[in-house]
Amino acid sequence: MTSNSPIEIVALRGGHVESSHRVHAVVAGPDGDATHVFGDPERVTYPRSALKAMQALPLVETGAADRFGCTPAELALACASHEGEVFHVTGALAWLDRIGLSEAALACGPQWPRREADGADLIRAAHEPGRAHNNCSGKHTGKLCTALHLGEDPAGYVARTHPVQRRVFEAVSTLAEHDLTDAPVGIDGCSAPNPALPLSALAVAAARYAEADPARLGPVRAQACQRLMQAMQAAPEMIGGTDRVDTDLIRAFQGRVLSKTGAEGVYMLYLPERRLGVALKAEDGASRASAAAIWSVLDRLGELDGAARAALRRHCRPEIRNWDGLVTGQIDEAGCV
Amino acid sequence: MTSNSPIEIVALRGGHVESSHRVHAVVAGPDGDATHVFGDPERVTYPRSALKAMQALPLVETGAADRFGCTPAELALACASHEGEVFHVTGALAWLDRIGLSEAALACGPQWPRREADGADLIRAAHEPGRAHNNCSGKHTGKLCTALHLGEDPAGYVARTHPVQRRVFEAVSTLAEHDLTDAPVGIDGCSAPNPALPLSALAVAAARYAEADPARLGPVRAQACQRLMQAMQAAPEMIGGTDRVDTDLIRAFQGRVLSKTGAEGVYMLYLPERRLGVALKAEDGASRASAAAIWSVLDRLGELDGAARAALRRHCRPEIRNWDGLVTGQIDEAGCV
Repeated sequence: MTSNSPIEIVALRGGHVESSHRVHAVVAGPDGDATHVFGDPERVTYPRSALKAMQALPLVETGAADRFGCTPAELALACASHEGEVFHVTGALAWLDRIGLSEAALACGPQWPRREADGADLIRAAHEPGRAHNNCSGKHTGKLCTALHLGEDPAGYVARTHPVQRRVFEAVSTLAEHDLTDAPVGIDGCSAPNPALPLSALAVAAARYAEADPARLGPVRAQACQRLMQAMQAAPEMIGGTDRVDTDLIRAFQGRVLSKTGAEGVYMLYLPERRLGVALKAEDGASRASAAAIWSVLDRLGELDGAARAALRRHCRPEIRNWDGLVTGQIDEAGCV
Repeated sequence: MTSNSPIEIVALRGGHVESSHRVHAVVAGPDGDATHVFGDPERVTYPRSALKAMQALPLVETGAADRFGCTPAELALACASHEGEVFHVTGALAWLDRIGLSEAALACGPQWPRREADGADLIRAAHEPGRAHNNCSGKHTGKLCTALHLGEDPAGYVARTHPVQRRVFEAVSTLAEHDLTDAPVGIDGCSAPNPALPLSALAVAAARYAEADPARLGPVRAQACQRLMQAMQAAPEMIGGTDRVDTDLIRAFQGRVLSKTGAEGVYMLYLPERRLGVALKAEDGASRASAAAIWSVLDRLGELDGAARAALRRHCRPEIRNWDGLVTGQIDEAGCV
């Protein structure tokens, strides 16, 4: 295991470091060994949306996904922080409708689409965004599926004590081999509970998910991991959307690497063929720093071929442009310029 | 002089530190002594828009402000990072028109208004934002005034070598007693040049500006500092806008403290009665951290009375709310919870 300082990401302007970020990261294998450590591997971190692929496991494991005929696109939506593009919203609404619910059943609050053009369309149509527009609406629809399938009252499904959330916490706890009894639990942007774990535990959990070994996880969980990873690969546009880093990354790596961003500067990466998982956290929560750090980690892992670099450069090593379109700076890793 | 670690600002969720920021800050007097240091006082920092009150000095000193009959509101606009509300834009356009120019003369690029409602109004009217919408349009109009007044070709007025910028750099260099010959110079978001100086130099410059002593600065510069500070107090809505921290701070302190934010987590504060200046920089560039730090500094200076706390709490010690309006966290200084 190589142990290093945090990854330092800098914003350069006029050739001078204007601002800098520290990113903590762990690369781990499924047996629990960290292969690479940057900064503090025990930093107790809210994974936020980076946890979604694990939060979606009960949807498949309980049989709810089969019961309701969930497509790969819907399974991907369950793992997504979507941008609120039209196909995301109509996808969520159609799924809710098929299970006999409307967006009124969602606990996640209304959210404007990320892309200005999509927001402008709503304004011109004099529409307000609804709960289905929330970037987590797929995750929440998946959770409602599990409640309905098991005959549970979906009301209050975002409470920590609701069976829906108990199943999610069990999946995370088991994959990470980390007791969540005393873990900090925050309320996420979408109102679902989010547990905080050490980065090392998150990385190991991601490695076990990526490995999807029935001997380690049991056949049901292993099969669920496989199915969800395949869904993300089949419908990457659901995971983020147009010009979003996770969507572009999943497309570029064609199964070699899957990624999921989380708010406050978090990423989790899955490398199925290499049986590795990665968890990283920008100390200050900046997404420009966490996105830059995934390039840094993947580069050290030897994963950045030409196609990957071309796909990720604008997300992970972007130029900084001003209001008149002039290039005024650059995001990079310290010491790399 | 008290010397400390950087101010640590934290984002709390579920009672746990989710993210953290380091803010470097210097409080100084006009003779060059730092009274308070947090972190690295020599950190070479782009002040960005925090420099605007100094960048506006030539507008007054050259006589251009009198030549063109500039109102206090226009002088305030010259010191502003305005939000692109209707009165900001019409104010800039009327000023440009009066000096015989249109927004085509501005080098700063088009920028959407900050507030969603103002942006929505543009969309519904099928209008695109113009150069006058740029938050720096007042600063740029002021610069054009100086060129016209002195018979200089305004073309290329944002070039470092243009007389307009030479006068700005001279004012900053003299106030700070800091040679800018070899200073890093970046291109700002508005396309104007922005020099980087040590935080200590910026703080001392702010102290001298705030003191506005004709014996130290000469009568012309001292009078210009006074006039611009009075303009900011007379028209604080110009400096930022509705529900913006600088506007609310200037109103709350009624002349005791003036503030100006800069991109990438910068603030400069002016305390005229106490002859103090403050310069601070969030290491990672986060505005939530720099805003929180001005509370921390003003608190240590004993400036936060009840009225100030009430006015600044939502900017500097805000609750974090999610998409459904639930309180999920808090911004605070580490060790204060």
